[in-house]
Amino acid sequence: MAAYRLQKRCDEEAVFVVEGPKLAGEALASGFGIRTVCATAEWSAEGGARRVERGEFYEVSEAELERLSSMKTPNQVWMLVERKGLDDFKDLGDSEGLVLALDRIQDPGNMGTMMRTADWYGIRHIVCSKDTVSCYNPKVVQASMGAVFRTRVDYVDLPQWLAGCGMPVYGASLQGRPITERLTLNTEHSPAVLLIGNESRGISPEAMAQVTDPVLIPNIGGTAESLNASVAAAILIDRLIG
Amino acid sequence: MAAYRLQKRCDEEAVFVVEGPKLAGEALASGFGIRTVCATAEWSAEGGARRVERGEFYEVSEAELERLSSMKTPNQVWMLVERKGLDDFKDLGDSEGLVLALDRIQDPGNMGTMMRTADWYGIRHIVCSKDTVSCYNPKVVQASMGAVFRTRVDYVDLPQWLAGCGMPVYGASLQGRPITERLTLNTEHSPAVLLIGNESRGISPEAMAQVTDPVLIPNIGGTAESLNASVAAAILIDRLIG
Repeated sequence: MAAYRLQKRCDEEAVFVVEGPKLAGEALASGFGIRTVCATAEWSAEGGARRVERGEFYEVSEAELERLSSMKTPNQVWMLVERKGLDDFKDLGDSEGLVLALDRIQDPGNMGTMMRTADWYGIRHIVCSKDTVSCYNPKVVQASMGAVFRTRVDYVDLPQWLAGCGMPVYGASLQGRPITERLTLNTEHSPAVLLIGNESRGISPEAMAQVTDPVLIPNIGGTAESLNASVAAAILIDRLIG
Repeated sequence: MAAYRLQKRCDEEAVFVVEGPKLAGEALASGFGIRTVCATAEWSAEGGARRVERGEFYEVSEAELERLSSMKTPNQVWMLVERKGLDDFKDLGDSEGLVLALDRIQDPGNMGTMMRTADWYGIRHIVCSKDTVSCYNPKVVQASMGAVFRTRVDYVDLPQWLAGCGMPVYGASLQGRPITERLTLNTEHSPAVLLIGNESRGISPEAMAQVTDPVLIPNIGGTAESLNASVAAAILIDRLIG
């Protein structure tokens, strides 16, 4: 199925694609609804099929799997998983600790990598501008390495959300204050927002107007123009709460 | 030209592909030898062609550029740049400060991103196992954002190099010592090596045997299995010398 048509259909049906034995295993263990599982005999033989208690199960050939898959090397299993409503993530807590806010992130690899990093640091809530890439994009799901099952991702009017959030907003900015020591943010009692901007254009002026603490990672080398967005996010998260 | 054939030819001729006005500008300013430049009239009109003092220059159509390019959206200019010999990087200093060592890194995006991060932190020397992806792979060059022009990258027998380097070797390992405070590495007087392993298999046993300081980024969330390799490298670099 053409990638675009499949994505449109997934949006309409509120499902997303999960591929490969590792992510499929996380999906089955996650409590997310399973709509459809298409897997090769190899996956069934390794016990995968026994774990499919919900949804429709189809055994498919390698050639059929290849037609379904968007991966270069399709790997045993392709499934459709039901998206969760925001209310389903209430048990993760609302705006406790550090919230990651993403303004116009476009690259699926960066988005998934930031979800994975947030997961590692126990950040359960990501708030995105409406034009940030979907967290259900197949490449995002792959790069997130399962974080998609453990993270609440909201798409909102970001400047408005930041204005009303009642938390300090740290914003990554080349015009920010260099952080030369670890901040003493106590996330249990002092929730805060870390805002990361678009890969080439940075934070939009409207969102930047809501930043209370512009911060910068010191450019020690003095030759590179910028850091990759997901790398900058990781370093700032680590400096804030690592 | 098929990507594989082009790569083989580039290896034989000791050149690499640079694409897009931004990287092309860095190539022209870098002092690297320029073999061939193929660019659209748009690039010439914007003054690009005037800056080509060396090498052959061809004005090409959008369609011709598309046939040359490996990018989804070819962008004005495609060029072949001459690789530098290791001796040409001598002015960067040899093993001063922090050296980044990469064991079996496979993903071009990760490789380029690590070169970009190293560039930001002033790390001028990267030592790789022979089976690490080439720093001249077009996707690596793109992701490096120009770091390829400012970084000496050696491909060596890595365990042997580590054994003889005479520096402490920090190795990223899930069995490492959690770093809970910034290390006080003074890179001017205490050079050291930071070793990063393969995306899924980590550091090889042979290289791990040469690690003097296994280190870990604390898993605060407790749910994610690992971090992206280029993210882990960035956080550890930042903790060591940021």
